[in-house]
Amino acid sequence: MKVGILGVGSTRFSEHWDKSLRDLALSAACEALTHSPIGFADIDAIFVGNMSAGLLAGQEHIGALVSSELGLTVPAMRVEGACASGSLALQAGIFSILSGQARYALIVGVEKMSDLSTSQVTSVLMNAADEELEGAYGFTFPSLYALMAQAYMKRYKITEEIMAEVAVKNHYHGSLNPLAQFRNVLTVKDVMNSSYISDPLKLLDCSPISDGASAVVLCREDLVTGPTLKQVFVVASTTSTDFLALHRRSDITSIPAAYRASKKAFEMAGVTQKDIDLVEVHDCFTIAEYFALEDMGFFEKGAAPLATQKGLTRLGGILPVNVSGGLKACGHPVGATGVRKAFEITLQLRGEAGDRQVHDARIALSHNVGGSGATAVVNIFARGDFFKDKLS
Amino acid sequence: MKVGILGVGSTRFSEHWDKSLRDLALSAACEALTHSPIGFADIDAIFVGNMSAGLLAGQEHIGALVSSELGLTVPAMRVEGACASGSLALQAGIFSILSGQARYALIVGVEKMSDLSTSQVTSVLMNAADEELEGAYGFTFPSLYALMAQAYMKRYKITEEIMAEVAVKNHYHGSLNPLAQFRNVLTVKDVMNSSYISDPLKLLDCSPISDGASAVVLCREDLVTGPTLKQVFVVASTTSTDFLALHRRSDITSIPAAYRASKKAFEMAGVTQKDIDLVEVHDCFTIAEYFALEDMGFFEKGAAPLATQKGLTRLGGILPVNVSGGLKACGHPVGATGVRKAFEITLQLRGEAGDRQVHDARIALSHNVGGSGATAVVNIFARGDFFKDKLS
Repeated sequence: MKVGILGVGSTRFSEHWDKSLRDLALSAACEALTHSPIGFADIDAIFVGNMSAGLLAGQEHIGALVSSELGLTVPAMRVEGACASGSLALQAGIFSILSGQARYALIVGVEKMSDLSTSQVTSVLMNAADEELEGAYGFTFPSLYALMAQAYMKRYKITEEIMAEVAVKNHYHGSLNPLAQFRNVLTVKDVMNSSYISDPLKLLDCSPISDGASAVVLCREDLVTGPTLKQVFVVASTTSTDFLALHRRSDITSIPAAYRASKKAFEMAGVTQKDIDLVEVHDCFTIAEYFALEDMGFFEKGAAPLATQKGLTRLGGILPVNVSGGLKACGHPVGATGVRKAFEITLQLRGEAGDRQVHDARIALSHNVGGSGATAVVNIFARGDFFKDKLS
Repeated sequence: MKVGILGVGSTRFSEHWDKSLRDLALSAACEALTHSPIGFADIDAIFVGNMSAGLLAGQEHIGALVSSELGLTVPAMRVEGACASGSLALQAGIFSILSGQARYALIVGVEKMSDLSTSQVTSVLMNAADEELEGAYGFTFPSLYALMAQAYMKRYKITEEIMAEVAVKNHYHGSLNPLAQFRNVLTVKDVMNSSYISDPLKLLDCSPISDGASAVVLCREDLVTGPTLKQVFVVASTTSTDFLALHRRSDITSIPAAYRASKKAFEMAGVTQKDIDLVEVHDCFTIAEYFALEDMGFFEKGAAPLATQKGLTRLGGILPVNVSGGLKACGHPVGATGVRKAFEITLQLRGEAGDRQVHDARIALSHNVGGSGATAVVNIFARGDFFKDKLS
């Protein structure tokens, strides 16, 4: 498969007290459309990734909202899969292009979270877990990931300090990204001194509550224009699912759905881990970045922590991971995150990522998890010249 | 376009006090799969239509929920567009089949509404309207449709009695449908004697609060099996969108999005209104059935009430409308409704609709509206022999 990306846009991820859900979505959408070589009226279909605008903003039906506010009457739907909603919206858009029913599709990911209190948002986010088997017993997302972290730390004998390396690296990357929610650098000591949220996860192991939106304009492969080195294609898009409840999974020191989705994605794109120049993975908690890197075969099981500590996943390392700052520092407006990954990767493949540019990036991967791992979406993106050399 | 329907299933629409969201979704999904000539493991992708499980049941992330509970790990996403969520899930599934990324797709529509009080549900449903421009000012859905009804009644000089004819007809149809929520017949007098909810709409002008789920198994055109007269295809699937807020629309005595979607659907299917043997339209309130029939060109503007009073839209009439009982009598679990329409039409085209069978139905249309008309989805379905005669 091969679908083009014509333009991208994103708000800063932050606490946008002065902006509504609608403002954020339209801001990103208009930026992506303005940066595309087509008019608003060329859009054939709209897919909005959003997890919980009903609970967070009293507003469902966001597909039609975005379409109408852009002055359009085109088919529009909201797509949801918890924190993977953005990547699933991208995937639904890809289906619409490949189906021949749309030439151009607008994908918007959006979430407005800061209008509620932190405890209310924590409660809303539990809608991504199994309400009957987890929510009803008082779990929160930090506590679910804490269980996974405890099991991983015991099995692979790692310390909280080594887990903190993810936050340190991602805050460093965030300091280079003008759209990141947090641009302050951290030390391992800072992370260790932050309060426990759910042992062993501390405040600075957790991604923040954020407002924001990102958008991407997709097009049919043959409609991509411009110089080859500015062309970006999605060359694989796969999803795998699993039980919502943690205790029903085959393993809690990994996310099996991400293993399966990435395996299919590499096959679909006809590339291997070695071909990938950068990855944007789902670091909702520091431990989750280790799962991601191991599940997708970038490192052996248990080896991601040491690799991270050695700097291999830092900008300039052999595999730059979350050069945007990731969910940890760039921020995590849940429905927007998957689309924001596509935004970041498009900038990187075009060589337009400024201070955080990965040198000569040609092929990149995004990894987006819903809940504690019941949904995993993996997308692989390639620059135009990659095909000329490798695929055609 | 042409996508096959292999199997369908549906719970009864009712107040299912003893069943959860999960129970309902799985019951319909298993029935559709069991009635399909494929195994569960053949499903390549799942699309769940649901409006507000987050607000109504504390559970988002239902795509992965359905996939995992069926023992699958396939791509799954929830699709939402208010009360049109079910039809949009069907459309997303159609895109996945036409894209070549899925051979078989499972579509499930589900909503569990009766766990909250009526006033809470009324508040949840307002998430389908414009929160900033309507919800914040105290509108409810009955009051929005009441405004539309008032305008229509004034323009076309119809009475509340003539509006009540829709409820009378649809309750008669519901009396023939074992899966309908209401199987009691009504008279115009019964409707007139029911309490005002929002003038001119009375209780018996309104569709009920319902629990239920419906499911459809879609397949690639060439994978349809069985005798021609049992084969069912989706031959058009279109959506149009409009402003969420009523006062921003070009007309409130019709639903312009439904006009646009149906026009495209007839073109896509290569048929006209005259070819259609039955329609399932979105009668969330009695007045809405008149909008539907006129917007789609089955009757001139202002002519649907008299046609209905004359019995033209009754089972046995020239255009049977909502032989299932419609939203009014069959029930309206919002996310399930669009899929339930596909379920009903599949039974009708196969000649398996029992007492409510439309004689020799070969081509049928479903019309599904989200909110007060910001989303309209029109699907056209045809029996296998229709192509042999007309299209090929």
